[in-house]
Amino acid sequence: MSDASERPLILVTNDDGIEANGIRHLAACMLPLGRVVVVAPDRAQSGMGHAVTINDVLTMEKRSFPLEGIEQAWQTSGTPVDCVKLAIYEILGKKPDLLVSGVNHGSNASINVIYSGTMSAAVEGAVEGIPSIGFSLLDHSANADFSATTPFISRIAGQVLEKGLPIGTCLNVNFPKLVTESIKGMKVCRQSAGHWDDAFDKRTSPSGSTYYWMTGNFNNPDQGEDTDEWALRNGYVSIVPTQFDLTAHHAISTLNQWDLK
Amino acid sequence: MSDASERPLILVTNDDGIEANGIRHLAACMLPLGRVVVVAPDRAQSGMGHAVTINDVLTMEKRSFPLEGIEQAWQTSGTPVDCVKLAIYEILGKKPDLLVSGVNHGSNASINVIYSGTMSAAVEGAVEGIPSIGFSLLDHSANADFSATTPFISRIAGQVLEKGLPIGTCLNVNFPKLVTESIKGMKVCRQSAGHWDDAFDKRTSPSGSTYYWMTGNFNNPDQGEDTDEWALRNGYVSIVPTQFDLTAHHAISTLNQWDLK
Repeated sequence: MSDASERPLILVTNDDGIEANGIRHLAACMLPLGRVVVVAPDRAQSGMGHAVTINDVLTMEKRSFPLEGIEQAWQTSGTPVDCVKLAIYEILGKKPDLLVSGVNHGSNASINVIYSGTMSAAVEGAVEGIPSIGFSLLDHSANADFSATTPFISRIAGQVLEKGLPIGTCLNVNFPKLVTESIKGMKVCRQSAGHWDDAFDKRTSPSGSTYYWMTGNFNNPDQGEDTDEWALRNGYVSIVPTQFDLTAHHAISTLNQWDLK
Repeated sequence: MSDASERPLILVTNDDGIEANGIRHLAACMLPLGRVVVVAPDRAQSGMGHAVTINDVLTMEKRSFPLEGIEQAWQTSGTPVDCVKLAIYEILGKKPDLLVSGVNHGSNASINVIYSGTMSAAVEGAVEGIPSIGFSLLDHSANADFSATTPFISRIAGQVLEKGLPIGTCLNVNFPKLVTESIKGMKVCRQSAGHWDDAFDKRTSPSGSTYYWMTGNFNNPDQGEDTDEWALRNGYVSIVPTQFDLTAHHAISTLNQWDLK
């Protein structure tokens, strides 16, 4: 077996599309850790959640990637979850040793995790039994500066490669918008119980038809100091172990007292 | 206050689109329980997971619905989750007393819950603090026979209206493909740890380009008799309390032993 094939195989994906700065940064962070394959959507797919393409066809093409040392790069017409499935079953023909998604341009802390294509790719990795991590920076800007995240990404990914992750879990890692020296460290957290108070910006087209843009404000009544929102507000990187078992196990005993036989 | 306004307000949505038989059946089941408003996608949105439309505009229009007694019906260009948000913040201007989604044409048991637009609408209801239920029948056919589900839907929805649901949870209800007399009853379950072994059917277009259809086989190594898959296979209706807190709380202590400070 050659030296190259013994290095871990790392799949890099995202939801902002293969042209985003965040995925180039993440791929660069992975190069010292293993062989890197990029499979990402051909355009921005934010807010896609765990969508999969089952009523339409998928296409993909091999392409160049602006980073020396990448083993291969592919863009697909699909969602982030489609990218993970295409990578495993069609491109690699096997499961990678590590899946990383991001770095997302914008927060995936608190309830954002359920709307996030970045995190859904990581959750899909966990479903497949692959150690998987989603990374996000609290800066929506296309030109966001990801440099402060490098040492943290390296340490987290290095440890996940070494130790694996508890079965059925992946990591949801969010970075505050701070320079490296201002980041106080990392905290393992729970998902804060925040939500969006939605609103719709109602407009009229030149031809007179009505359309809407979704807007809204994030609202976090959860004042716990063990949450991702608290960590980020206080200058820490938040790390939330995230699972695909959605069962509310604590509610089973309550429902078993109902008339549901 | 008039009699009509004291009856509970029930929002009905789905992911198979407003023309599907399943949503007409579900709306009919709700009529004896309260005032019924239907807000659903204008076309099939299966597999959309928790997708929301943030990079595009949304449209909606009031329309007729083939069922006497419905208070209003709307179709939207959005995903199931978009429909819930539009209903609350733009159409109703308030939260309904109950949200029901479905009846889905096909299973949303086990891991299907995370890909399901039907269940994502119910989960979004739970995020909004609305007692919410997703219903699915193990029959993909457009002409599936939903009649056996009626008494169960009535009992479950009636109890949820009366008692509410534990905070942060909704219900994932799946029906076996059986006639009423053959259904043994209902079981409160956990989500079975199954997954899809995906495959891609690779084809060539007339112009010579390659495209893929996602296929695959469902695989359920979880032999527990407390799972939704076990219940359905054994002739029961499965009821899984489902939550949007994705934190793997049991994994926090493990990660706190890592070098993540």
